[in-house]
Amino acid sequence: MKHLLSIEDLDRAAIERIIAQAERFAEVADREIKKVPALRGRMVLNLFYEASTRTRSSFELAAKRLSADVVNFAASGSSVEKGESLKDTVLTLSAHKPDAIVLRTPWAGASALVSKWCDAAIVNAGDGKHEHPTQALLDVYTLHRRFGRLDGATIWIVGDVAHSRVARSNVLAFQRMGAHVTIAGPPTLIPRGIEQLGCEVRYTLDELASADIVYALRMQHERMSETWVPSMREYATWYQINARRLTARQVLMHPGPVNRGVEVSGEVVDSPQAVITAQVEAGVVVRMAVLYELLAGAREPRAVSDRAPVAGVAAAGGGPLA
Amino acid sequence: MKHLLSIEDLDRAAIERIIAQAERFAEVADREIKKVPALRGRMVLNLFYEASTRTRSSFELAAKRLSADVVNFAASGSSVEKGESLKDTVLTLSAHKPDAIVLRTPWAGASALVSKWCDAAIVNAGDGKHEHPTQALLDVYTLHRRFGRLDGATIWIVGDVAHSRVARSNVLAFQRMGAHVTIAGPPTLIPRGIEQLGCEVRYTLDELASADIVYALRMQHERMSETWVPSMREYATWYQINARRLTARQVLMHPGPVNRGVEVSGEVVDSPQAVITAQVEAGVVVRMAVLYELLAGAREPRAVSDRAPVAGVAAAGGGPLA
Amino acid sequence: MKHLLSIEDLDRAAIERIIAQAERFAEVADREIKKVPALRGRMVLNLFYEASTRTRSSFELAAKRLSADVVNFAASGSSVEKGESLKDTVLTLSAHKPDAIVLRTPWAGASALVSKWCDAAIVNAGDGKHEHPTQALLDVYTLHRRFGRLDGATIWIVGDVAHSRVARSNVLAFQRMGAHVTIAGPPTLIPRGIEQLGCEVRYTLDELASADIVYALRMQHERMSETWVPSMREYATWYQINARRLTARQVLMHPGPVNRGVEVSGEVVDSPQAVITAQVEAGVVVRMAVLYELLAGAREPRAVSDRAPVAGVAAAGGGPLA
Repeated sequence: MKHLLSIEDLDRAAIERIIAQAERFAEVADREIKKVPALRGRMVLNLFYEASTRTRSSFELAAKRLSADVVNFAASGSSVEKGESLKDTVLTLSAHKPDAIVLRTPWAGASALVSKWCDAAIVNAGDGKHEHPTQALLDVYTLHRRFGRLDGATIWIVGDVAHSRVARSNVLAFQRMGAHVTIAGPPTLIPRGIEQLGCEVRYTLDELASADIVYALRMQHERMSETWVPSMREYATWYQINARRLTARQVLMHPGPVNRGVEVSGEVVDSPQAVITAQVEAGVVVRMAVLYELLAGAREPRAVSDRAPVAGVAAAGGGPLA
Repeated sequence: MKHLLSIEDLDRAAIERIIAQAERFAEVADREIKKVPALRGRMVLNLFYEASTRTRSSFELAAKRLSADVVNFAASGSSVEKGESLKDTVLTLSAHKPDAIVLRTPWAGASALVSKWCDAAIVNAGDGKHEHPTQALLDVYTLHRRFGRLDGATIWIVGDVAHSRVARSNVLAFQRMGAHVTIAGPPTLIPRGIEQLGCEVRYTLDELASADIVYALRMQHERMSETWVPSMREYATWYQINARRLTARQVLMHPGPVNRGVEVSGEVVDSPQAVITAQVEAGVVVRMAVLYELLAGAREPRAVSDRAPVAGVAAAGGGPLA
Repeated sequence: MKHLLSIEDLDRAAIERIIAQAERFAEVADREIKKVPALRGRMVLNLFYEASTRTRSSFELAAKRLSADVVNFAASGSSVEKGESLKDTVLTLSAHKPDAIVLRTPWAGASALVSKWCDAAIVNAGDGKHEHPTQALLDVYTLHRRFGRLDGATIWIVGDVAHSRVARSNVLAFQRMGAHVTIAGPPTLIPRGIEQLGCEVRYTLDELASADIVYALRMQHERMSETWVPSMREYATWYQINARRLTARQVLMHPGPVNRGVEVSGEVVDSPQAVITAQVEAGVVVRMAVLYELLAGAREPRAVSDRAPVAGVAAAGGGPLA
């Protein structure tokens, strides 16, 4: 694995390897000292063209917990304001030889393009409406910790699928792990042909009770440049996940940030059925596992350099917890 | 001490303990290598909802000098722009398990609320017009270095008390240390009932000569949503601290940033009576002491973990200078 | 060398010393672990009043590769928004005792002023239209790696010289290294009296073929508050460096970010004659060399402190690669 661009690139074994690695890192997260020296001396560059709470901070923490150095690069306050193209920005930053670039952009497919322009390992942290693979991996991890295997589980993904990179990555990932996936929402927010991914499609929540897991998507105000639903109130009437619709045996997931009172009611967000905080917690350890897989993995024998080590800087040998 | 939310929570002994610890760190600040390993492997999250020069940078430096990792999180460029609530932002970030959250918000009482929502040690770095306890501690430290004990000293706090979190914290802290505090300013900028804190109130500077220490407050343009004074020129005429009003034996303090020509004249800011730069210098060591008190203090025996230490990462044992 | 404010302060020997040091650091940049402990425990403060991709990120990486701690301070989101003066901001930040301040401002001469206000080593990372000395040093380094000595080489600097701090620094640096420099561009963009620097001036590109190296300057939209050229199209017609004008034996340089289709055509930017990516790569190692020269250099014997070292924090002794 050289890059993480899309869940499509991962088979079930690869996902399970990342989940298992994340579980090992989760033990570290409970310690007083939460750092391991696995990526000491490595450089991770966070290149974010869009606002982000969870994703940027959890990648930054993940890198720091692996003892990597992190350089944050937000589009605002940079040469991007001078009209520099993505290509020139990436070429510039990759000339600094980062080991990995964590990239979020509003443009579908940007991560794949960038991976052709530079030597760094590219982690897609969201590319427009296309994919957000680490979100899918942390969701699989969260469910794995709660239920063990996902084989045969029924998962409903509800809401604005059309504008959601999370939906696309999660349909693929949940199916890879053996779950049955149903997409539900108003017809204007369900992309045509989505059933070709192998999922079912529903335009009402009438059969929501059949789900083991309900995954509510965020109504993406900032991405809705046209009017897709009559109003947020109308949307909530028909598609909001709330105490009336969610049964006691079901688990509620959401990628955050939550619009309380729109796609989910406040009461279910704060209920014990919601695993939303567990999803966020999973973010750091899963991203640690991804960075570890890409930068310290078995792809090439990196344990011992043929150059003399630099004094005072430990080599990245041994296991991640070594 | 689990959090630092308000000076009200601190008795004189606690303030003296922090001052003494800060003095030990001040010795480190004069060395070529200014770092100590006391908080190696710990994570400090700076969560700032308001612009700040002094406070954010001094907390960041304080954490880094203690060898902690720091993640900065400014409200701008984050999910806060997507309308995420303070609670959801804090729950998200605390799911990353920071050891401490340094919080600045425009909302009085926000730090106390946040301390109920998460396990991290919360440091109030300013909550609206309420409190700014580390400012008060660094002011006490600055005076302690100059004068020794404050018992019996007379301190005048002059200016816009109504909109100042600094004023409230400092009245409490100076009194805890035995000083007599007088509040002075135009009636529109002195909150009713402030004398219940135990201080005296004056509406003119006629008796300013009785003060040993004059503490000028910043005129908070950005917080004055209504008109509180006829004009800045009018304010300066009656309340500006300048060479005409400040006697040679008095010391001038100001929390910064200074509005030269408004609450203070440029000449007194640049005079040897001003200890404003010493106040800023005190910021780093006092904040080191606060973080050390909260994260490595005697509250619970943390020196030796019952889990095996992670190789390559030193445990936070011994004294701060160990 | 205490500060790096201007190329004027450097003689040829000083430039050669920095280039040689950068070449030693370039070997480190090719290793798996790209860090050296030379500046462990030191603090570098990046104080940027203007947007920057290359410069800020390369200084940040340079400092981190030397194991220094970095605090980034952007004017936006700070007390600068409250109207704090440069002097007060610098006094505040220097009270935190950074070892070096890397400063970019829109004001010519600001770096020299700041160097009088504080004890830190000041690195001018661009001060208005005045100078950008590390850019000139990395350009010399890039040419040195390609050609060896520059003595007798002919270098044309083409475009908006009037608004370019790069032009001024580079004319000086290239001449110090023995090159002949010609300035070319429309009369409105060539400052009067520039030939007093010892360079020639041309208002057309008719003799461009005589150049060994063509250095295209960025058309600084954001700095052009008045109309200096009839249009970008008109400028491109007469002064764009493109495949028609650039001969096969010539090398193309550009400080970035590039305006493709304005001062250079896309085809020459992507051609093997362009060393623009090499210039960016040079940025990190040259800035490592500058920080090393200023903070760990031979100016005063720093190897052994007379104070006991702080446990767990290595002293900055030995060579940079020790």
